[in-house]
Amino acid sequence: MIITFVTTNKHKFREVKGILKDFPFELEQLDMEYEENHDSEIEDIAGSAARKLAKELKKPIIVEDTGLFFEAYDGFPGALPKFIFKALGYKGILKLLEDEGRGAYFKTIVAYCEPGKEPVLFEGIMKGAITKEVYNLEKDEMPYDKIFVPESKTKTISDMSLEEKNSLSQRAEAFLKFGKYILAKQR
Amino acid sequence: MIITFVTTNKHKFREVKGILKDFPFELEQLDMEYEENHDSEIEDIAGSAARKLAKELKKPIIVEDTGLFFEAYDGFPGALPKFIFKALGYKGILKLLEDEGRGAYFKTIVAYCEPGKEPVLFEGIMKGAITKEVYNLEKDEMPYDKIFVPESKTKTISDMSLEEKNSLSQRAEAFLKFGKYILAKQR
Repeated sequence: MIITFVTTNKHKFREVKGILKDFPFELEQLDMEYEENHDSEIEDIAGSAARKLAKELKKPIIVEDTGLFFEAYDGFPGALPKFIFKALGYKGILKLLEDEGRGAYFKTIVAYCEPGKEPVLFEGIMKGAITKEVYNLEKDEMPYDKIFVPESKTKTISDMSLEEKNSLSQRAEAFLKFGKYILAKQR
Repeated sequence: MIITFVTTNKHKFREVKGILKDFPFELEQLDMEYEENHDSEIEDIAGSAARKLAKELKKPIIVEDTGLFFEAYDGFPGALPKFIFKALGYKGILKLLEDEGRGAYFKTIVAYCEPGKEPVLFEGIMKGAITKEVYNLEKDEMPYDKIFVPESKTKTISDMSLEEKNSLSQRAEAFLKFGKYILAKQR
């Protein structure tokens, strides 16, 4: 069985390929842009994109959407972490959290859809907190990884090996749930 | 000539009807939702919506999109003023601007499109500054109107009559440009 992961992000595809390497199905990347309504919840963004793409492409599709949520602000930055980082930078983000609770979580939704069917969603969550300074500023990594310390850890994501990150990450959690679902279907 | 303004916002439709009352064409409201990709610039949001709607509805269409831009933060809140206000509230917004330049501007784009043609865009800008406190908190008005003082004025939009607001507003500017364009076409 071949499942098509629609994403323009090669790094993400490689990461997910690693997460799912022990599952007996093949994952292929389709490097294609699709419309996302970022006003919506990430569940709706991923679900409606998967439904549309499966119909258009006439094959089983997965898409993924990840949001970040600060406890101090309702639904922020939500489905728009990239836009918000570009606009506010570390300066603005750390300013917003001054004297506020620093709790935060990442949420990933993987949406799987077969043509003509309803999408099935798989969720992963990683709780943690936003640091007061930026770690590893010089590294070429996701910006929030440099200010996010997962629960029960004492270092930021950017200080972790890929293996350590995958053992914790909400993305790995969501994709492993998806993998097990496909496995159960195949039996 | 009848031009259809696609908006779900009755108040906005009434405001625009007032702005264009002296022009010799009829404006009708079509209360219909359409997709907006809020990641984009407001020019693209309005232009591509107008193109799509004119094609679908087979008649001349206008749509409007308004963004707000703080000088201290690049493209923020941009095309997403509602989302940002809902998430951050006055507390977060004023916090972001502490010890920063308080300059800001509203930009409205009106996009006019006839079926099968390219959209024509009309821009209005109102420069000003964000106050340090919230005025007229109790009034049922647009949230940013309570913290925005237009250039060369000493009070917030929320302290102005509708006439005074229309004499300044970027929305009136953009719609008047649009009205003059239609007038010139009709001659």
